[in-house]
Amino acid sequence: MPPYKTIEWKSDALVLLDQRLLPQEVRYVELRNPHEVAAAIRDMTVRGAPAIGAAAAYGLALAAQTSASSRSTDLLAELDAAADLLKAARPTAVNLSWALERARDAAIAAAPAGVDAIRAAALREAHAIAEEDARANRLIGLNALPLLPDEVAFIHHCNTGALATVDYGTAMGVIRAAHEHGKKVFVYVDETRPRLQGSRLTAWELQQLGIPYQIIADGASGYVMSTRKVDAVVVGCDRVAANGDAANKIGTYNLALAAKAHQVPFYVCGPASTIDLNTPSGAQIPVEERPAEELTWFAGQPIAPAGSPAFNPAFDITPAELITAIITEGGVARPQFDWSLPKVVAGARKPPGLP
Amino acid sequence: MPPYKTIEWKSDALVLLDQRLLPQEVRYVELRNPHEVAAAIRDMTVRGAPAIGAAAAYGLALAAQTSASSRSTDLLAELDAAADLLKAARPTAVNLSWALERARDAAIAAAPAGVDAIRAAALREAHAIAEEDARANRLIGLNALPLLPDEVAFIHHCNTGALATVDYGTAMGVIRAAHEHGKKVFVYVDETRPRLQGSRLTAWELQQLGIPYQIIADGASGYVMSTRKVDAVVVGCDRVAANGDAANKIGTYNLALAAKAHQVPFYVCGPASTIDLNTPSGAQIPVEERPAEELTWFAGQPIAPAGSPAFNPAFDITPAELITAIITEGGVARPQFDWSLPKVVAGARKPPGLP
Repeated sequence: MPPYKTIEWKSDALVLLDQRLLPQEVRYVELRNPHEVAAAIRDMTVRGAPAIGAAAAYGLALAAQTSASSRSTDLLAELDAAADLLKAARPTAVNLSWALERARDAAIAAAPAGVDAIRAAALREAHAIAEEDARANRLIGLNALPLLPDEVAFIHHCNTGALATVDYGTAMGVIRAAHEHGKKVFVYVDETRPRLQGSRLTAWELQQLGIPYQIIADGASGYVMSTRKVDAVVVGCDRVAANGDAANKIGTYNLALAAKAHQVPFYVCGPASTIDLNTPSGAQIPVEERPAEELTWFAGQPIAPAGSPAFNPAFDITPAELITAIITEGGVARPQFDWSLPKVVAGARKPPGLP
Repeated sequence: MPPYKTIEWKSDALVLLDQRLLPQEVRYVELRNPHEVAAAIRDMTVRGAPAIGAAAAYGLALAAQTSASSRSTDLLAELDAAADLLKAARPTAVNLSWALERARDAAIAAAPAGVDAIRAAALREAHAIAEEDARANRLIGLNALPLLPDEVAFIHHCNTGALATVDYGTAMGVIRAAHEHGKKVFVYVDETRPRLQGSRLTAWELQQLGIPYQIIADGASGYVMSTRKVDAVVVGCDRVAANGDAANKIGTYNLALAAKAHQVPFYVCGPASTIDLNTPSGAQIPVEERPAEELTWFAGQPIAPAGSPAFNPAFDITPAELITAIITEGGVARPQFDWSLPKVVAGARKPPGLP
């Protein structure tokens, strides 16, 4: 196991591995209130849809802990405000609002028993979300195994590993499961501009896991598919709509088009909490635009002429028709997704052990 | 006109604008022998297929000038060695060997008149290649005009401007011609990893020309096409095979796939010297691989874990079926390219004024 923890609850604080400094520096930050958590989500100290979901739930638990309210109704009102703040930190990933709603519902259920019960319930629910995410990722990896050949070369976009989740990873979990089950694995790592989550974070995780890889420019994926053996593209997701359209890190759509042209299976991997059956299609998913400076500056240096404007959408939408399957802990959804996605969501909700 | 000259012959030296330092620094280097020219092509002090063609021809002229040979046969043997050196500097662009052959043929033709005649002929041919390139680029721009609407939003990859050519530019020449002829032009500038020719060089040229633009990540082109109005994709080329397959900067193929998916016309722009009728298809075009460090280091800083391997092809091959038209100074070639390309090559060879 890698010697790092992306998200950890420790002595009444949320401890996050600062992902902006990796791989050059492994530094942890300790957050003690929901404002600090919202800022950490906004500035991408923590990133990856499942990770920000769990972080937000802990943010709500911190709001409960740090509140001076002695009446349940006052505390619930404070939690509502904290949830709004946390939810607004990033708009695209649905896990954020999903986790906040779960933590808030737990708090409401505990309200009749008083403020201490609310505090305990919010923290308990955050822990549950974190534990379930780690378990879901391992199931995603196992569910993917039958889809993969014994020698498997992947192209992977962005970072979807232990760093993007509470543990193990989604698309990276698929890669890890293949590796752990004796398949011969190779990974082409999209560097993933502008923030280089691929070369900074995914390469770092693969190196520590001993899985062989090569970093490629995002624009090289088509050339790699036309000149080398590629068996599967695996990506994470920030929100999957009811029709199967998937929002994920910018560049995913171009990668999906290249996979289609080369008939390479394109797998979207994520926990069922990323599936938003209330969003009919990708057209309704809000896509965050981030600052131009992410493209025009690098490590404190300008890389474009002063004053250069840039258009920097953080995500794109891959239409369902380019997706071979959506792999979740509740099972593998295949087209038609409007039919298969509700089934895997229901499958994910079943208590372990039930048929 | 922009206040810079990419390539200039000045006091018996080849003066190049050092493109590795732009846009932060405008610095010129003076080269006085073919070894220095070969190094400048290799390390990308000068880049862009037409520019390296002209630079190589001047490199051969420098070989002639700096030679101490007093016999024509000796001098021609030296020129052969210099041509081999220069040709090996970069493998993909065909303009390099095309320009060297022209300069060498001129030297051979002058050989009976002695070494001074050879020296003069080599330099004269280099000047001719440079002048023809500048003229060809303006014709490429004019030939493209009928293909473009009055309000035209482009996506452009890499740099194809005055910096990539002797003057004016190829795909950038198309953008400039549209702008100069009163069309309302907007350009989405692919930043073009790993060397950022888009954000460093194309943005710099567009800024100086007063043409509005936004820099985008290479992976964002599909999202831009699906959410904004894009009327044409324009790219340069390093070698076009007889069947229309086009080698160009890595990322071009992914961009072409996105253009196809959105039915956006995809135009490959270049002088006829880039068309290699002796190469049957893209499969026969050698694709240069450049050092991993171009991906894993930036501005002297590592951006990936130490020891990370990378696969860094400098070019990719866009298959002919994704190309709407190939725009040259000899006319606009449309599919079937095996039929139309020889016509535009012949058209480009006609002396000006002839029908």
